[in-house]
Amino acid sequence: MTTLAYLNGRYVDRREALVPVDDRGFLFGDGIYEVTRAWNGALLEAEAHLRRLRCGIDALALDGVPDELPEISRALLRNNGLLTGHALVYWQITRGVATPRTHHYPPADTPLTIYASATTFVPPDAARATGVGTITVPDLRWARCDLKTVNLLPNVMARQKAVATGAWEAIMVRDGAVTEGAATNVFGVIDGILRTHPRSNYILHGVTREIVSELAAGIDLPLREDPLLVDEIPHLTECFLTGTTTDVMPVVTIDGHPVGDGRPGPIAGRLHAALIARWSMG
Amino acid sequence: MTTLAYLNGRYVDRREALVPVDDRGFLFGDGIYEVTRAWNGALLEAEAHLRRLRCGIDALALDGVPDELPEISRALLRNNGLLTGHALVYWQITRGVATPRTHHYPPADTPLTIYASATTFVPPDAARATGVGTITVPDLRWARCDLKTVNLLPNVMARQKAVATGAWEAIMVRDGAVTEGAATNVFGVIDGILRTHPRSNYILHGVTREIVSELAAGIDLPLREDPLLVDEIPHLTECFLTGTTTDVMPVVTIDGHPVGDGRPGPIAGRLHAALIARWSMG
Repeated sequence: MTTLAYLNGRYVDRREALVPVDDRGFLFGDGIYEVTRAWNGALLEAEAHLRRLRCGIDALALDGVPDELPEISRALLRNNGLLTGHALVYWQITRGVATPRTHHYPPADTPLTIYASATTFVPPDAARATGVGTITVPDLRWARCDLKTVNLLPNVMARQKAVATGAWEAIMVRDGAVTEGAATNVFGVIDGILRTHPRSNYILHGVTREIVSELAAGIDLPLREDPLLVDEIPHLTECFLTGTTTDVMPVVTIDGHPVGDGRPGPIAGRLHAALIARWSMG
Repeated sequence: MTTLAYLNGRYVDRREALVPVDDRGFLFGDGIYEVTRAWNGALLEAEAHLRRLRCGIDALALDGVPDELPEISRALLRNNGLLTGHALVYWQITRGVATPRTHHYPPADTPLTIYASATTFVPPDAARATGVGTITVPDLRWARCDLKTVNLLPNVMARQKAVATGAWEAIMVRDGAVTEGAATNVFGVIDGILRTHPRSNYILHGVTREIVSELAAGIDLPLREDPLLVDEIPHLTECFLTGTTTDVMPVVTIDGHPVGDGRPGPIAGRLHAALIARWSMG
């Protein structure tokens, strides 16, 4: 079956969506990306995702991104038969093709590479039912984790380490404090208080993280944006991950040790239900 | 003029050297690279470059790299008319094309993407004659700078900041100590002693850095592998950069302040001459 992707103003067969080896995305990871969920053809939290993409565009000075990203997203969903059920829209914008290879930016009139695709999506509900195992790993990443760039190798290596040991996610630890997962944000519950790393340059400002924080306030659950310390992990009564493709995912083990009673916790369950209700997926 | 590149076992017109958008190099920066100099068709320090490439291959578990990289490099030089004068050979190896997009590694039988090109090269001798200006910037990079990966965005942004202010290189500072440049290693001279950051996870183990260290020993110049502290910058009598495309490049200003007497220093000159002599370019 042909899947249509968007590349530089054209809709093309995804298998024929090719970029030159001299694309700065390929050579330098000089670009940003964004993943947005869709449900029955509607983009979920589209404004928040677009706002974050615009932050990345500004930080990297990627001039020339068209305004029509939402329209293109919807066209991809429509033309790929994704107007019912779950889907994902992926965007990637790089600083384009430039030779000779130089670290510094090429001339300002170099066209950006703008790529988007839409795919069907199956939420990880089976994993959610049992909860997932995690490992802790040192957070080796750079000091601008708030930018959603394609410099993802540390995340890739961390997630691979988790998967190789049978775990679902790697929880990253910097200076004795939990920052986030390889591709998720991390929340914990201690003494009935929800805890997560504050918005800073050391975490991605997750769209789902933000919504879950709002939903917690809506059910009178106190939230403290204070990093969870590694030393506090044994005191967790609950732990869960959030993310665009994760929703709310209960963590039942960390480094082989059970979290709380080792089963998905009630707070994760309530917040997940509230999230699904927000999106009228119920 | 057609330039031949190597891509996945074939020699192709470089303008037709294309990779799918689903290449993990493009999506994740999941790959490594290497740049080797050539002079009159001969690869310079080929073994050291190959050794470093092999370190990256091992660290990233990129299984399936062919043994014939030197032969392919020589074929690229020969077939692109680069058997006289200066040239560069660029290698990049990524974890190949895989869908669906997952952070963790795709199945082990996923073919790697293996790309190489050769181009003519003009050493920056004009800049060398006058020496270059630099700025200091915070070193925002991850904790595995010893791996020569294509996650180069922090280097790109640092170099861009330098170029935008009219400087040639950005000198990175982590915790009050000079680590290296955006695409070079940094040496300084204080009290007649050569100083550079020790080999660690915070710098790239530069091939030219290593050779220059050996050449310094050969001319009885004491070398201390101790990071240069920011507070020591005003006491530098000389500063220079090293790199595969840089050789030895005298730094005459840092953040607008002259280094020593503000002219290229004698130690940089002697080490550059020794490097050229080593390669019989003289």
